[in-house]
Amino acid sequence: MARNYNYNYAFVFYDVGEKRVNKVFKICKKYFHHHQNSVFRGPITPSNLIKLKSDIKKVIDESHDFVSIIKLLNKESFDEETLGIKRKDTEALIL
Amino acid sequence: MARNYNYNYAFVFYDVGEKRVNKVFKICKKYFHHHQNSVFRGPITPSNLIKLKSDIKKVIDESHDFVSIIKLLNKESFDEETLGIKRKDTEALIL
Repeated sequence: MARNYNYNYAFVFYDVGEKRVNKVFKICKKYFHHHQNSVFRGPITPSNLIKLKSDIKKVIDESHDFVSIIKLLNKESFDEETLGIKRKDTEALIL
Repeated sequence: MARNYNYNYAFVFYDVGEKRVNKVFKICKKYFHHHQNSVFRGPITPSNLIKLKSDIKKVIDESHDFVSIIKLLNKESFDEETLGIKRKDTEALIL
């Protein structure tokens, strides 16, 4: 997909060192209010996506940690099926 | 997105009880060859998606476990940015 698309929905998952995992978690909590065990997701504006990336870059060790940001145009770009209980995340509001 | 789309790419993430996590992991490994800490992803045919779901349903406790299957038309339906190291998963071949 071309880089200049206007992405407004994202999933973020990460595999970062123990010392940094809380920092990354707190950053993601600022931008998304849905998450299950280190997978964050939700609507996000292009400008917030840029801020999210720069915030994360400040705290991770780029030679050890791994963060993946899956960007989608919007919530209509995918379909979701859940098996088992509906969702285990907290429904906290976006700050 | 309408249910009758032809999805050929998926992400699977899950939060399941300790006793069942290996079983779910092994099932996902049958269908996907990329994964990072319980997030599987990759191309998958619609018929394999159906098999994946029925395999997972056989092993999870539907009153405790949570499995999310994010279905996309194809790899072009999203864009990915990774921060830090490229990817921490094993590049094992599909069985």
